[in-house]
Amino acid sequence: MEGKGIAGKLLEKSDEISHLAIDIGGSLIKIVYFSTNSKCSTNDEAPTLSKERQEVPNGDLNHHILSGRLYFVKFETSKIEDCIKFLASKKLQQCGAQCRHSHAVDKIKIKATGGGAFKFADLFKEKLGITLDKVEEMESLVAGANFLLKAVNREAFTYIGGQKEYVQIDQNDLYPYLLVNIGSGVSMIKVDGEGKFQRVSGTSVGGGTFLGLGKLLTKCKSFDELLELSHQGNNRMIDMLVGDIYGGMDYTKIGLASTAIASSFGKAISENKELEDYKPEDIARSLLRMISNNIGQIAYLNALRFGLKRIILGGYFIHDHAYTMDTIAVAVDFWSKGEAKAMFLRHEGFLGALGAFMNYKDENADSMPLQLVAKSSSCIVDRIHNSTRVDENETGAVDCRLRVSSSFKIYDEVKRC
Amino acid sequence: MEGKGIAGKLLEKSDEISHLAIDIGGSLIKIVYFSTNSKCSTNDEAPTLSKERQEVPNGDLNHHILSGRLYFVKFETSKIEDCIKFLASKKLQQCGAQCRHSHAVDKIKIKATGGGAFKFADLFKEKLGITLDKVEEMESLVAGANFLLKAVNREAFTYIGGQKEYVQIDQNDLYPYLLVNIGSGVSMIKVDGEGKFQRVSGTSVGGGTFLGLGKLLTKCKSFDELLELSHQGNNRMIDMLVGDIYGGMDYTKIGLASTAIASSFGKAISENKELEDYKPEDIARSLLRMISNNIGQIAYLNALRFGLKRIILGGYFIHDHAYTMDTIAVAVDFWSKGEAKAMFLRHEGFLGALGAFMNYKDENADSMPLQLVAKSSSCIVDRIHNSTRVDENETGAVDCRLRVSSSFKIYDEVKRC
Repeated sequence: MEGKGIAGKLLEKSDEISHLAIDIGGSLIKIVYFSTNSKCSTNDEAPTLSKERQEVPNGDLNHHILSGRLYFVKFETSKIEDCIKFLASKKLQQCGAQCRHSHAVDKIKIKATGGGAFKFADLFKEKLGITLDKVEEMESLVAGANFLLKAVNREAFTYIGGQKEYVQIDQNDLYPYLLVNIGSGVSMIKVDGEGKFQRVSGTSVGGGTFLGLGKLLTKCKSFDELLELSHQGNNRMIDMLVGDIYGGMDYTKIGLASTAIASSFGKAISENKELEDYKPEDIARSLLRMISNNIGQIAYLNALRFGLKRIILGGYFIHDHAYTMDTIAVAVDFWSKGEAKAMFLRHEGFLGALGAFMNYKDENADSMPLQLVAKSSSCIVDRIHNSTRVDENETGAVDCRLRVSSSFKIYDEVKRC
Repeated sequence: MEGKGIAGKLLEKSDEISHLAIDIGGSLIKIVYFSTNSKCSTNDEAPTLSKERQEVPNGDLNHHILSGRLYFVKFETSKIEDCIKFLASKKLQQCGAQCRHSHAVDKIKIKATGGGAFKFADLFKEKLGITLDKVEEMESLVAGANFLLKAVNREAFTYIGGQKEYVQIDQNDLYPYLLVNIGSGVSMIKVDGEGKFQRVSGTSVGGGTFLGLGKLLTKCKSFDELLELSHQGNNRMIDMLVGDIYGGMDYTKIGLASTAIASSFGKAISENKELEDYKPEDIARSLLRMISNNIGQIAYLNALRFGLKRIILGGYFIHDHAYTMDTIAVAVDFWSKGEAKAMFLRHEGFLGALGAFMNYKDENADSMPLQLVAKSSSCIVDRIHNSTRVDENETGAVDCRLRVSSSFKIYDEVKRC
């Protein structure tokens, strides 16, 4: 179970999950959950949130503040059983099972997005008694990106010349931007504001292509292994460079250096070599560069089309990988002649899950009763916890507070236990 | 020798090559030559062109008309020795060798383009005594495309719903257009007129990628074999479709059918399968579709950028292959919502070589002394010969006439033999 180690770790440090949202993509399942560390009550009282409950500074007595932490976990979609086990082990399920209302467990609803929210709806119902409350995928991605860009300090950064540079974006100057989410496939969304967006493009050459082709071409078994392998490779062993065609010369007239890639995998047309004659790390590197460069180019062309100077990249494909970010950033810079900038996000893989999380609403009110709130007006997050990642499954847990309407019932009946 | 069969065939039916141009790319060498069928003189007289020589209708006595045929031949660049042998066997070389001027052979110059005109210049000099007279690659592509579009009947066609439809383009309405040449890599050129153009984009995901990745993933040895294999495959066995993610449903909100490809090669992320578990034909098909679709999309985005409604596709990658053309045409149609049209060319693989051929000029005059001329004002070509291709090496030989300045010396000194 890929998520096992971290799941155990999270269980130790988070006793209760108050809210959880899930994004089930073609390759990966991403989960975001909020935990308060309070003990779950086993009687019919309201949950023991007293230690975390605080009056909202503006005197809004209808709301409470829960202090806690947002956690980020992923599983491979092909191993969805591991995800089911993980969820079954968490308090949200245990609470439900102990409720005096015998049918309570059937009424657990969690926010879910991605195609798997449709595909696996019956499985979640059957195995966990959980109803997946579907949130539209693009809407979730946008809500998640907006949340991160507005609320989390040191979230967005540029990657130039191997250097990360964090950017604090002025909230009044955030829109419009192009959101490029690289999942199994790639979606490109023009974002004009909160809930104002349009999916303008995409490409099928994405993370699924990297892992799919990578698995066929190397002996790698996982995305992380393939990414690690690519780190050690040299794409010039297998890509056909301009210099390979021009006898070592630049093609100066059209501004292509001899080292520019003329044809990805072009050297592999050689008759005398077979797959076994190439190093897997060179193949992985070439593949990563081909896909990253292609995404950067298509992103730039779409940004150009709508006059968007800021391109925000999300999706687990990026995975804070230096070479991937460098290739995308260089592609955007090359094609835009420095006019457009690629920006990356620390929680890049969890936009959809975060957006679904933001979708929790009080059914009895128009206003959003559940929201991550700020201690100050500009930032809802106390600090970024764990800036050095523990492992690949945990992506920087975020300490934060949740503003909850007193009329809001988390997990419907279950939360009454 | 890939060109051997056709080379022999051509030798039988063409006794003398009067003009020849060569395009040496990263994967393929393309040759265009004009043959008059006249016998080469072995004395010091002018070549025996009397039978073909005609007065130009407008009474221009300084020019002659050569009747003959344009031939199109290709070799793999990795087998350049075969190309050298082919050229050595042709009359242009034999003429040179028999000249009374002992150094004449050293003065053969042929028009050459592509990176290989630089890379292999010394080899041609050494093995054949031929100097490659370099013509800039983009300039050649544009000249070749303009020639075909203006001069050759039934050259350009659309491919919609599996049907070719020939288009006779009004010469007054030809420009501007986007020329997309798919060689090992892809160049995208905005063409505004004769010699007026700008390379505006390109991608490294081209023909070299198809053959390179195809060779690594299947047991195919050649481009043609890989293309043939793809014809029998089903990309849905290996591509991840929208329906695979959404449990068989369309993603209607963003207009993606369940059958749309969400992630090229995305199904190959499956843990339980290895390369051997997939059919090579399905892999070839998926690869072809990924690359064709990607090129179609990037081409459309560039056409949109410059307001170009016509996208002309060239390069040997297309190779009159139904599925390739269909995928590109559908991609352009899909992304442009029917606004832009993809058009293909019968002699798609020889734009560069044809353009280099058009570059023969009289060094003593400003006007172009050598040009393919029309019998009528609108068309220089009598007819398209051999509309059913003999084999993959011959692409529709073209009967035509060559207008030659009397002061023009073909092959420099050599033509005096």
